[in-house]
Amino acid sequence: MKLSRYKHDSELSYAFGATLVYELAKTHPELITRVFLRPDLSMQGKKIIEILSMLRGLEIEIIENNKVFNVLGAKESCLLIAEFQKPNTTLTPIGTAHIVLVNPSDSGNLGAIMRSAVAFGYQDIAIITPAVDAYDPKTIRASMGAIFHLNIQQFSSFENYSQLYGNFGTNPRKYYAFMLNKNAQKLTELSYISNNYAIIFGNEATGLPESFANVAQPIFIPQSDNVDSLNLSVASSIAMYHFSQQK
Amino acid sequence: MKLSRYKHDSELSYAFGATLVYELAKTHPELITRVFLRPDLSMQGKKIIEILSMLRGLEIEIIENNKVFNVLGAKESCLLIAEFQKPNTTLTPIGTAHIVLVNPSDSGNLGAIMRSAVAFGYQDIAIITPAVDAYDPKTIRASMGAIFHLNIQQFSSFENYSQLYGNFGTNPRKYYAFMLNKNAQKLTELSYISNNYAIIFGNEATGLPESFANVAQPIFIPQSDNVDSLNLSVASSIAMYHFSQQK
Repeated sequence: MKLSRYKHDSELSYAFGATLVYELAKTHPELITRVFLRPDLSMQGKKIIEILSMLRGLEIEIIENNKVFNVLGAKESCLLIAEFQKPNTTLTPIGTAHIVLVNPSDSGNLGAIMRSAVAFGYQDIAIITPAVDAYDPKTIRASMGAIFHLNIQQFSSFENYSQLYGNFGTNPRKYYAFMLNKNAQKLTELSYISNNYAIIFGNEATGLPESFANVAQPIFIPQSDNVDSLNLSVASSIAMYHFSQQK
Repeated sequence: MKLSRYKHDSELSYAFGATLVYELAKTHPELITRVFLRPDLSMQGKKIIEILSMLRGLEIEIIENNKVFNVLGAKESCLLIAEFQKPNTTLTPIGTAHIVLVNPSDSGNLGAIMRSAVAFGYQDIAIITPAVDAYDPKTIRASMGAIFHLNIQQFSSFENYSQLYGNFGTNPRKYYAFMLNKNAQKLTELSYISNNYAIIFGNEATGLPESFANVAQPIFIPQSDNVDSLNLSVASSIAMYHFSQQK
């Protein structure tokens, strides 16, 4: 059994803990290659037993092995780890709104954005690289399993994304870019939005390059001058909340 | 010069990095006991020089010392640290809305909530203990300095908070508690709110105890069933955004 801590270029990743393993098995059992179980029966409550029964029903291999948990860097309280194939998802080309994240750099933020995306009915997240790894176990943990409900596709540039998904058939996708700009519109003043849009957010430290004002409607969240800006996951979640209320 | 890494029970805390030192010196210079400077002149850009000049104008002691940065656990890129007296602030008793956080446990979340609070015009945060330390340098960093614009007061129970700030004079404070409950109202359906209110949020993992439904109007953010819940800082920021739009 060859195993090592997660690496970005690996084809496999890991879901740590009962909640994530359950969420993965419920949504994408076909991706699971095997599940590791801490062989300490005294710690196995009702929830673990239910999940194990579900995994057995799906004919997923369960391996009892304590050492794996150390090798993979799990916490003491972690009793289950699912090893899984990272999926090669593509975005829904038309009829659903996209979230576009340009160079997100923090796994906690990316995970929280995924949670909010699922909460507010989004299914598609485009990530422009360089960016934090969406399938890093830390991101998966921060997403609380929301990642398994999403289509996530990486692009090496916004232009690449836009070529594929900007103009599908006769319906141009409307772009909204979160940035301060003299033409920026208040989020609160945006009213009806068709589903064929994308909301674009920049990096935590640097935001979006000024050039996005040429290809997108710049928008901003009205806020006090006393603070530099909102946290990225907060700002993008407020935008998703607001847009999802307009339907 | 006796110095050690920050401890919860210390009367002093530390603001790491130029941005936070600047923010602290601008808002509460009287709290600063001294500032440490990395004596590597090659790294001192225009911003550092401006801040040093500001500090000298305020007659704040500046100590050049490399070792302090290691002792306090600063990153290599950190050039300035302000040591400061943790303030003993109390909340504004009337006429402003409060944020009440019951047992928040994550410094990143607490800091992000502070950023959002300042962004949306709040000045007062009540923290019900046990809770993560508001003046831990990690929280201060996550707040991006927003903490220095806020009144933060700790209480050992919600009842203690409520006794002090629930009924000031003849104006009872209206409580909104974020929780799932059969009487919970949708956030989106809340309309005009007077400024004399408090929004109450529970712990990241456990939420609010059911008993809050007896003392507060339960409210919730409409969301998909596919996800467990929103991240705490996201949920509370959406609430603050929504409430601040109602003014």
